[in-house]
Amino acid sequence: MNVKHQAQHHTLPANSETVHWGYFSKDVEPRLSVISGDFITIETLSHHANDDASLMVNGDPGAESVFRWNRDGKGVDRRGAGPVDATLFGRGAGEGLGVHILTGPVYIEEAEPGDIVEVRILDLRPRPSANPDHLGKAFGSNAAAWWGYHYQDLIDEPRPREVITIYEIDVTGERTWARALYNYRWMPQTDPYGVEHATIDYPGVPVDHDTINKNTAVLSGVRVPIRPHFGTMGLAPVEADYVSSIPPSYFGGNIDNWRIGKGGTMYYPVAVQGGLLSAGDPHAAQGDSELAGTAIETSLTGVLQVFLHKKNALAGTMLQGLDFPLLETDSEYVVHGFSYANYLAELGADAQNEINNKSSVDNAMRDAFRKMRQFLMNAKGLSEDETITLMSVAADFGVTQVVDGNWGVHGIIPKGIFP
Amino acid sequence: MNVKHQAQHHTLPANSETVHWGYFSKDVEPRLSVISGDFITIETLSHHANDDASLMVNGDPGAESVFRWNRDGKGVDRRGAGPVDATLFGRGAGEGLGVHILTGPVYIEEAEPGDIVEVRILDLRPRPSANPDHLGKAFGSNAAAWWGYHYQDLIDEPRPREVITIYEIDVTGERTWARALYNYRWMPQTDPYGVEHATIDYPGVPVDHDTINKNTAVLSGVRVPIRPHFGTMGLAPVEADYVSSIPPSYFGGNIDNWRIGKGGTMYYPVAVQGGLLSAGDPHAAQGDSELAGTAIETSLTGVLQVFLHKKNALAGTMLQGLDFPLLETDSEYVVHGFSYANYLAELGADAQNEINNKSSVDNAMRDAFRKMRQFLMNAKGLSEDETITLMSVAADFGVTQVVDGNWGVHGIIPKGIFP
Repeated sequence: MNVKHQAQHHTLPANSETVHWGYFSKDVEPRLSVISGDFITIETLSHHANDDASLMVNGDPGAESVFRWNRDGKGVDRRGAGPVDATLFGRGAGEGLGVHILTGPVYIEEAEPGDIVEVRILDLRPRPSANPDHLGKAFGSNAAAWWGYHYQDLIDEPRPREVITIYEIDVTGERTWARALYNYRWMPQTDPYGVEHATIDYPGVPVDHDTINKNTAVLSGVRVPIRPHFGTMGLAPVEADYVSSIPPSYFGGNIDNWRIGKGGTMYYPVAVQGGLLSAGDPHAAQGDSELAGTAIETSLTGVLQVFLHKKNALAGTMLQGLDFPLLETDSEYVVHGFSYANYLAELGADAQNEINNKSSVDNAMRDAFRKMRQFLMNAKGLSEDETITLMSVAADFGVTQVVDGNWGVHGIIPKGIFP
Repeated sequence: MNVKHQAQHHTLPANSETVHWGYFSKDVEPRLSVISGDFITIETLSHHANDDASLMVNGDPGAESVFRWNRDGKGVDRRGAGPVDATLFGRGAGEGLGVHILTGPVYIEEAEPGDIVEVRILDLRPRPSANPDHLGKAFGSNAAAWWGYHYQDLIDEPRPREVITIYEIDVTGERTWARALYNYRWMPQTDPYGVEHATIDYPGVPVDHDTINKNTAVLSGVRVPIRPHFGTMGLAPVEADYVSSIPPSYFGGNIDNWRIGKGGTMYYPVAVQGGLLSAGDPHAAQGDSELAGTAIETSLTGVLQVFLHKKNALAGTMLQGLDFPLLETDSEYVVHGFSYANYLAELGADAQNEINNKSSVDNAMRDAFRKMRQFLMNAKGLSEDETITLMSVAADFGVTQVVDGNWGVHGIIPKGIFP
């Protein structure tokens, strides 16, 4: 590691000046510059907060500044990697081609392509609701949406349908589970610019609660274990100027692995100068597969520590040859496979559209296998034969997500096997 | 449950009279008959024991009777669902179309199609080696074989290759991990009938250790956590007379989920009179995916308790509508999805060959999603919308195996969410 100075502790709040919405970009002006070893308290906002603004936006100055949208303008105009003039689909600036509110980017001094950035998640807590009727609570939204795995495969009428379920989380830390409060079927919403959104096709559209039917008879008594984590965190890719925040890739991004929480450490390959770290898409809980399309989408505040590993110091370390996002927890190493390891490079000029036609768990499993083998050979010095038998008897492969275009399979190897 | 009598405790040893090798069949004569509530101590043998007979066969009368093979005959002639006269490939009786040594079948009194058989695994222990030089140890074999996921995707020469790794397990229970002893590359083996096996194409071929090169520099210091379980357990299917033991299906079989161990309970739909329960393919450890094609294949002895749930008593219970193998552990329900939920019925007359051309993690994920939804609706009385959000935020989908023809994805829902 490249720690040269007395570490500083920075704070990066989430507001309309510190977030970019729906894309990673090497062209976004950094909001903060840090040196290897520095700490960052970073606020992140859920892009689903407007599913119930009274619980997740109103009275919260940071959230209000980001979600502000009236006839005169928006707090953050561009939402997505699409055209700003909204000539493609007419949904709005950025076209919703990418949906996550990302805080950052953070410029890491001296980071250059070929280096590895290490991000330790030292803490991660729900953002309390500013609603005075709900002190000590936080809230989240789960959208069973059109991009969900279930959407074309429903049993009950009407088919298809989108359903929002609002969950309540305790912020005192005393309760380790979330409970469902109510759900509602998505109804066409007309945004402040007069565009109707028949489906959830643009992020941050305010939901008019006079248009929906709240159903409070939902998951009565069910306790969902909380697993706070960043759905999306990563560096800026080099292959394109504006990259949708939805498909994860070699630079990290929307990996949607619930293990990327407190106590976890991510390692990302650097593709552009300064790395340009952003985080968002905070989740209170998610299952492996994120089946319906989203998690319990809940604003969170994290404490990160960032380290830079220069490329000429990687040989002989476990980061040698690392060209994908790697997670380390107290007990596990986790490799992340995708349908395409680097879809931006592999799928050509139209990659950001094409990836949605090429989603495949089978491909992601193949990629995860190869990455696990590579990691065990490079990081642990095993022969190929040793990696093959070890994967078969000790590694667990799971379905990370089947909803983010570039579908994911992760491979887990326990650290305890190497005493 | 249908418990009418004082439960009996039966013992079913593994020997040439009590096993069938490589297939499930409704036509096999039951080796034992039990009544709902009865206990069974059941011995199971690994079909890979002859990879090192000195450690896993010799001196063990049960294993010797099963593996016996000389010019005059075999302890168990038929190995697989193929023709007994070996006219198809010439490999041997049964053609190795199915490989697992299965103890049983056990006839469950009064079991009829439409009922559910519940099998509780009360205990499961490694079978000690009979080799006097290795008291207190058990051994297992991991074959990185031609049916493995890695086989056509190797980096190092020679390509492809099959590699056997022998592991040592402690049977005192003091050591919770296995260690690798040595490995060797599979060399062509000539069986006692004079047939050469260039690859691992027939189960139980004795490996002549004068033909191989033992490499003891393998996984030095690595500790593989043990997870004893039955790779294969299930009832007899109705669709065909002899069914290869390799592809799992609605009746259970070769599910290869390491969670099917001590403390676990399996529920199987009954397809034929008496159910006809068999168990085998014992594993000391396996990872989700069973990547190389096998686990640590290790003979085990289990204690089971069997219950019969009659079809007219299922309504209103969690078994209502269950048409797939369900696992319940202390903390989880686990549904098992496959590329084809019932490949024998879905793929026509040539299903047992066709399934190998239709392996798909994507299909298995789809099946697992549908089964989890069905289970949550039937067993927990949830609406479809409730199941969709709950799966997205609380269910974990993982890759059970990618090596058994009918590939598997399992879905896990924690029991604790329903307090």
